[in-house]
Amino acid sequence: MEFYECVFCQSKFPIDLFNTFCQECREPLLYHIPHKKRNFHLENTHPLDIFKEFLPFLERNPSFRLGEVLTPLIETRHLTEKTDGPHIFVKNEIFNPTGSFKDRGSIVAVQKAISLGLNKIGTVSTGNMAASTAAYGARAGLETFILVKENIPPEKLISTSIYNPKLIRVEGNYGELFHKSFEMGRKFNISFMNSVDPLRIEGYKMIGFEIYCQLNQNPPQFIFAPVSSGGHLIGLMRAFNELKRQHMIDQCPTFVGVQSQAYSSVAQAFASGLPKVKKVKSGKTIAQAISNPNPPGGNILLKMTRENNGLIIDVSDEEILLAQKLLAEREGIFCQPASATTLAGFIKLKGKIRFNKNDHVVLVITGSGLKAIKALESRKINISETTLDKLEDSISSLVNK
Amino acid sequence: MEFYECVFCQSKFPIDLFNTFCQECREPLLYHIPHKKRNFHLENTHPLDIFKEFLPFLERNPSFRLGEVLTPLIETRHLTEKTDGPHIFVKNEIFNPTGSFKDRGSIVAVQKAISLGLNKIGTVSTGNMAASTAAYGARAGLETFILVKENIPPEKLISTSIYNPKLIRVEGNYGELFHKSFEMGRKFNISFMNSVDPLRIEGYKMIGFEIYCQLNQNPPQFIFAPVSSGGHLIGLMRAFNELKRQHMIDQCPTFVGVQSQAYSSVAQAFASGLPKVKKVKSGKTIAQAISNPNPPGGNILLKMTRENNGLIIDVSDEEILLAQKLLAEREGIFCQPASATTLAGFIKLKGKIRFNKNDHVVLVITGSGLKAIKALESRKINISETTLDKLEDSISSLVNK
Repeated sequence: MEFYECVFCQSKFPIDLFNTFCQECREPLLYHIPHKKRNFHLENTHPLDIFKEFLPFLERNPSFRLGEVLTPLIETRHLTEKTDGPHIFVKNEIFNPTGSFKDRGSIVAVQKAISLGLNKIGTVSTGNMAASTAAYGARAGLETFILVKENIPPEKLISTSIYNPKLIRVEGNYGELFHKSFEMGRKFNISFMNSVDPLRIEGYKMIGFEIYCQLNQNPPQFIFAPVSSGGHLIGLMRAFNELKRQHMIDQCPTFVGVQSQAYSSVAQAFASGLPKVKKVKSGKTIAQAISNPNPPGGNILLKMTRENNGLIIDVSDEEILLAQKLLAEREGIFCQPASATTLAGFIKLKGKIRFNKNDHVVLVITGSGLKAIKALESRKINISETTLDKLEDSISSLVNK
Repeated sequence: MEFYECVFCQSKFPIDLFNTFCQECREPLLYHIPHKKRNFHLENTHPLDIFKEFLPFLERNPSFRLGEVLTPLIETRHLTEKTDGPHIFVKNEIFNPTGSFKDRGSIVAVQKAISLGLNKIGTVSTGNMAASTAAYGARAGLETFILVKENIPPEKLISTSIYNPKLIRVEGNYGELFHKSFEMGRKFNISFMNSVDPLRIEGYKMIGFEIYCQLNQNPPQFIFAPVSSGGHLIGLMRAFNELKRQHMIDQCPTFVGVQSQAYSSVAQAFASGLPKVKKVKSGKTIAQAISNPNPPGGNILLKMTRENNGLIIDVSDEEILLAQKLLAEREGIFCQPASATTLAGFIKLKGKIRFNKNDHVVLVITGSGLKAIKALESRKINISETTLDKLEDSISSLVNK
């Protein structure tokens, strides 16, 4: 028997695609994972097939897929050498069909909705999740409703509207819209798979399982992930907690969630020892994808981070931009600013805690830099100007002597 | 003994990273493939390791890689049903590290340059190839020179400059710059791996081998690919020609190269039965990535297309935009306009030649739509406007009855 549960009041709720919050606590529900022996199916190649025993029951219909792969885990070369510290790996979620980790959640949530007989899905989002949901909806031939904020920049609309979803721009408070979407869902039979959807969170577990497999069935010592709604890091923790319960690992990694300083509600609550996250005012950050003043999964994340001896920290825009530059210049990886918080967080923490030389540190790179080109438009580009005749002089002056 | 050869005059040249054109014919040289028995290594997972016997000798140093995968081959759902025709597959090259097929060429050309002792690479490009070369150069820790045209749009520079190559904007004729780069290369010991570089072309063969493997070791009946410099389609033909020589297939696919009408030099020469391609005037097209008035590989492509009973056709911007929309709306794949020429070409050809119901048609999707967001800025976005209070009415009016 499948059900959702509240980790605060332990209430149980039947699987309901129109309500994913506890009616008592107003907290997001999580999918209950019954305890039984589970195995990976490494004879398969698709993540859904490899990890099927660890995912909520799915009609794993291959025709709804978009060619998902095990995203690469690669060891950094120049960052690792430079720091003379631990081995730093990048888990590169850019290799998802729409270029962000959101696809991990969409594929699970969409297939679950279909298996429960729905043909309408939706989401409330302003960025990566909108494009991801619209793409999977298109592939599956579903009616897809995307609700966006009034101030969404036009370029963000393009990469979602191309899939031709039913796109609605809604004036009014975003938090209210988030909750109102479920009411609309029930009325019109639309499964609104928003940021902390319990099935999305199950999908994010695949990232954790892949890291474990790619490190030859070992956990890393540290995992850094950006924090917006909280769902992604909750999923990563659930993955490793399950591996521990299955006696596949002895110890979980230390999880480090990283927020932007302008939207550091969870980091603030964590640092102050508060039991609950307090909403922050909207600020300005280069990391648009994690500019979330009131993360719906914040309280669960806070609780789980403490239970797992993790950390939630924040980094400045300067630190984020430096990290983005380092990943591109030194390692050839162009990620969006939100993803660069992971390296920025590692650099910041390196001054404060001791990493061992043999530690494995994994940075989860959540999305492509191509999704946030606008963020770099004001950055000065280092370019020489010349003519064909003077090309030789120009190259000569640039060659390392 | 490795060498380059001219397919027109049969001259042989030693491998020379500073000159990749025949001194007699002024045509691009190709890598000579000695005839011997070769095998795939399907026990491996990385394309370079699987196809190593089919690639030019490489120090396949894993630390210069960027997490390359076998890019997915997925069957379209709604296009296939709709046309009641052949099975249409998409070979999705968006799943490369920098989001385009250029990475296939860069990884081979860069590793070859390193194995020959060079630590400086470069390219002459205005788009996908610049970003790809800069990313691999960064990863390998090489000095990377990127020469661009004077009129390159600023947003194109951002996704290349992020890797911090030595970027030079050169005033003057692009064709001259292309050839001048080799002179500079010899002077400064820089391997300029431009569009029809023989090693790049060897790298493109991997796309063909993967298609064959993913169709359970069968060739498709048709392969559609966009044509710009010509290098990509030359590589695909070489892949299947080699499979035939190895007796792994009986018959090669019919290759269909597709150009934009504004830059249809090869298609025009093909249609007119001319032996050589004539340069066309610069025109206007939505498919910026294939806006090449004088494809350096045009003559080889023309010759090989005729020898292989292939076709070179052209499509209009309207046809391209419709195809781009269809791929996104029906299949959840957001590609750049240049890639959509493949579907546009298929649709155009369907009116003229007979496809069998059981034919397998492969469209090579060369690059991500995120790389060409600008091309869609003038497109009307279908969006409803509402307030929280009226959200219900708005959704109600959009729901399919």
